[in-house]
Amino acid sequence: MRALILLAHGARDPGWAEPFAELLARVRALAPGTPARLAFLEMMQPDLETAARGLIAEGADAVRIVPVFFGQGGHVRRDLPDRLAALRDCHPGVAFACSRAAGEDPDVLDALALYCLRDFES
Amino acid sequence: MRALILLAHGARDPGWAEPFAELLARVRALAPGTPARLAFLEMMQPDLETAARGLIAEGADAVRIVPVFFGQGGHVRRDLPDRLAALRDCHPGVAFACSRAAGEDPDVLDALALYCLRDFES
Repeated sequence: MRALILLAHGARDPGWAEPFAELLARVRALAPGTPARLAFLEMMQPDLETAARGLIAEGADAVRIVPVFFGQGGHVRRDLPDRLAALRDCHPGVAFACSRAAGEDPDVLDALALYCLRDFES
Repeated sequence: MRALILLAHGARDPGWAEPFAELLARVRALAPGTPARLAFLEMMQPDLETAARGLIAEGADAVRIVPVFFGQGGHVRRDLPDRLAALRDCHPGVAFACSRAAGEDPDVLDALALYCLRDFES
């Protein structure tokens, strides 16, 4: 069974996570049969390992991690490959894959550009 | 003249800013007559004040700031209102407005959700 982790940075302010909960709800609505969870790199729970363990306990044997980050900074370029290597060591029977940062996607950039200008024109 | 600032967090890794440069290029393509600049809260230049001064020097008398953040955390809820108040004090002849965090926009969330699943299905 394939499963999805939406990985965000995390922040001290609990309200910061609201759009990620919204995003998870949209993903679940688009793919109702796909187990999907949020995970956070810092300051919020669950962390990546806890989210992965939960999905594996539900039967996932292939987990794709999508970094919901604008850019590929140190977190995505360095921390995430280390965490991914540790996950693979811990769960040798599970295939882990990792997408590029969501903010690099042309369609996401187009939606962001329209948002910037929509507010501007009002 | 109205102008636009796309405000991002900033990061140590210079590569992190690449999607924001892409976003600025898309905004300029959609609104070629609109002066638009990037600014960063931390670790990258220009900061918000420098970007605003540059636009005002070009003739802007109305500046809209769009926080290109996923969520409204401490930066957007607390730091940004303080910085905005300081900008208004410094430039009393300029109207400043501030949008909500881009990641709260339903269309941006839809594009993100599709991205999460597009990679998943490949």
